[in-house]
Amino acid sequence: MSELLTKAQRLKTASKTLAALSTNEKNEALARIADALIEQKEWILQENEKDISLGKENGLSPALIDRLQLTSERLMQIVDGVHQVITLPDPVGEITEEWTRPNGLRIQTIRVPLGVIGMVYEARPNVTVDAASLCLKAGNAVLLRGSSSALHSNKALVHVMQQALTHSPIPADAIQLLEDTSRETANQMFKLNNYLDVLIPRGGASLIQSVIQNATVPVLETGVGNCHIFIDESAQKQMAIDIVINSKTQRPSVCNAVETVLIHENWPYTQELLETLHNNGVELRGDHALVSSYSFVHQATEIDWSTEYLAPILAVKLVKNVKEAIHHIDRYGTKHSEAIVSENQENVNIFFRTVDAAVLYHNASTRFTDGEQFGYGAEIGISTQKLHARGPMGLRAITTTKSLVYGTGQTRS
Amino acid sequence: MSELLTKAQRLKTASKTLAALSTNEKNEALARIADALIEQKEWILQENEKDISLGKENGLSPALIDRLQLTSERLMQIVDGVHQVITLPDPVGEITEEWTRPNGLRIQTIRVPLGVIGMVYEARPNVTVDAASLCLKAGNAVLLRGSSSALHSNKALVHVMQQALTHSPIPADAIQLLEDTSRETANQMFKLNNYLDVLIPRGGASLIQSVIQNATVPVLETGVGNCHIFIDESAQKQMAIDIVINSKTQRPSVCNAVETVLIHENWPYTQELLETLHNNGVELRGDHALVSSYSFVHQATEIDWSTEYLAPILAVKLVKNVKEAIHHIDRYGTKHSEAIVSENQENVNIFFRTVDAAVLYHNASTRFTDGEQFGYGAEIGISTQKLHARGPMGLRAITTTKSLVYGTGQTRS
Repeated sequence: MSELLTKAQRLKTASKTLAALSTNEKNEALARIADALIEQKEWILQENEKDISLGKENGLSPALIDRLQLTSERLMQIVDGVHQVITLPDPVGEITEEWTRPNGLRIQTIRVPLGVIGMVYEARPNVTVDAASLCLKAGNAVLLRGSSSALHSNKALVHVMQQALTHSPIPADAIQLLEDTSRETANQMFKLNNYLDVLIPRGGASLIQSVIQNATVPVLETGVGNCHIFIDESAQKQMAIDIVINSKTQRPSVCNAVETVLIHENWPYTQELLETLHNNGVELRGDHALVSSYSFVHQATEIDWSTEYLAPILAVKLVKNVKEAIHHIDRYGTKHSEAIVSENQENVNIFFRTVDAAVLYHNASTRFTDGEQFGYGAEIGISTQKLHARGPMGLRAITTTKSLVYGTGQTRS
Repeated sequence: MSELLTKAQRLKTASKTLAALSTNEKNEALARIADALIEQKEWILQENEKDISLGKENGLSPALIDRLQLTSERLMQIVDGVHQVITLPDPVGEITEEWTRPNGLRIQTIRVPLGVIGMVYEARPNVTVDAASLCLKAGNAVLLRGSSSALHSNKALVHVMQQALTHSPIPADAIQLLEDTSRETANQMFKLNNYLDVLIPRGGASLIQSVIQNATVPVLETGVGNCHIFIDESAQKQMAIDIVINSKTQRPSVCNAVETVLIHENWPYTQELLETLHNNGVELRGDHALVSSYSFVHQATEIDWSTEYLAPILAVKLVKNVKEAIHHIDRYGTKHSEAIVSENQENVNIFFRTVDAAVLYHNASTRFTDGEQFGYGAEIGISTQKLHARGPMGLRAITTTKSLVYGTGQTRS
């Protein structure tokens, strides 16, 4: 039998034991994982070094090498992450609804694990441990499909986690790494409906699209963020500047960073905003009106409006009113995070009612679209789809429900 | 441009208007649809008659002809269904969660329409109106893809509904029928991620599988029900018999009917149960022990355990205990509805904790897995998948949420 099928079967079996464990039992197992990662630190770093050497030989970019690199400090951050997951409330067993029907049937809907989760991700070894610990905490077994360039690191991390589980209530089989990283095997994995309950791709747009295009297993889409801020005519000067600077420069490489700012043509502080951005090293690409007024604004082309730069570059555009701003967002947005800075409540209402996105902001930075910032403690990803979970996904997003119906002999007439 | 793309674009545009309408506006439009269906009754029945004639010419089975047939009475039931949808509470705008973060950000999660829903179904013209009215009530535009054998009926029904909408707050474009019923066009529809937010297949297993296998648009799987009842050693005689008879015979052709009954080998009333079933015209297929004890029980083969009969046939099997029953359900069940009849609370707890299905019953008929029986007023289908919605799906299942974040200038540090 193939590696994929063997591991999928083990996961399915393990998931049944795991689903019935108590919070304490799961936390005990997670604590063993954290301890083992510390104990085996040297070996993990050695194995990671093999990936780094191979990556350099294969000409990976310095940015990719940096993502791939584990250090003693980064490993301790990963361990801290596991400890953080231990502190999170266990969603499993929560009663989400309860009601009684006129015929006396009592119906209770309770939260239960999804079962087996397939994680598909790129060359970030930290995801291996982050995703595994979140899945286990929510009672799910997990099939990890990472990048071939991180294979030594991932094998080491999964080996250490499995060894830690052998002395814990969670079966060691509950975490499996798919070592065959071929595209053919990935496509088989994406169609493994009898074993996998959901696929969660984490990575760039092409990875996510390849999962969506090839999967028959349901996908939790985590996606691209072409986020906008609309500065209304009434926006306070300093607040608008602070929010834009924060949304663009605090961490430009992430999906909740702003990529286009739409400015009401009568807002009096456009010059101050653009100069502040320019002085903070942000490259500005604007429409004709802005280019002709400000020497440091470059001409934007059509493609700029739909680009997720993930870099200190910002598209800027003047708009006539909130409707034109919404129209632009509707056309180019990716339904991730959209903000309005305004003192006009009516325009805020229109914006909140009309814009279709996971998270809408009034007078706040788009950077808050994040599981920790939302108070979920940790995050498995940010959903940009509409089914099941939308926006930051915490532990609840990797659970489902079942209905328990308590009768006294009721039959249907 | 193709019919599919033209209609998909119209739906997307209409969905934006529709999403912003009040409950009263949507109800007014639905009332106009109900009135128009009555006014145009004769013409609808004439058009339906064309499908019936063609169906007979093409040798459709009497059962299929019956499904396809509209009568004055059936049309009035459809109209009653629309009135029922008008009375349902509108899920759109519900605040599902609200909390404040330590930095003062107030986060509100509200229910909003999904957008555009693709319904894929078979030759039941009633689904055309049922699905359309539910989708509209929840603020969604709907693309209807019915069977070619119901094309005249569906065209007439959709024409009448669109005409009714032209004088209402809902844009007439919010309901579209895909008249091209070729498989190629269906497959294009299933991949129309830029226009469709979800696909809901309603029909037999092969229809559902064809959507799952070919779709890149997220699917709400409504599925097959191979439902079980486990009669524990302590089950009350009459209660167990009543529940089994109701679950099997009250309406054998539906997905929540029972297909296999697992009987504890020490339950004292097996003979009475089997004789009652036999006397009610149920064909019994059992394991060796039952076949050798009861002349009217036929030998079951492996395939019986996984068959959804949808007919007055029942598989029966003796088991040693609740664990063996759960093991059988785990192996052959379809995660739809599973019941235990027992007076032993510990066994009920094990059953409820361990069995993985949308709905579990203690001492009640499996036939209650139904939107109306659950109190949802109406149902768009019964989900057998784990993402988004599980079990009977009411109006909430065809909505999503968005998070509204109210700030006072917060930025992330």
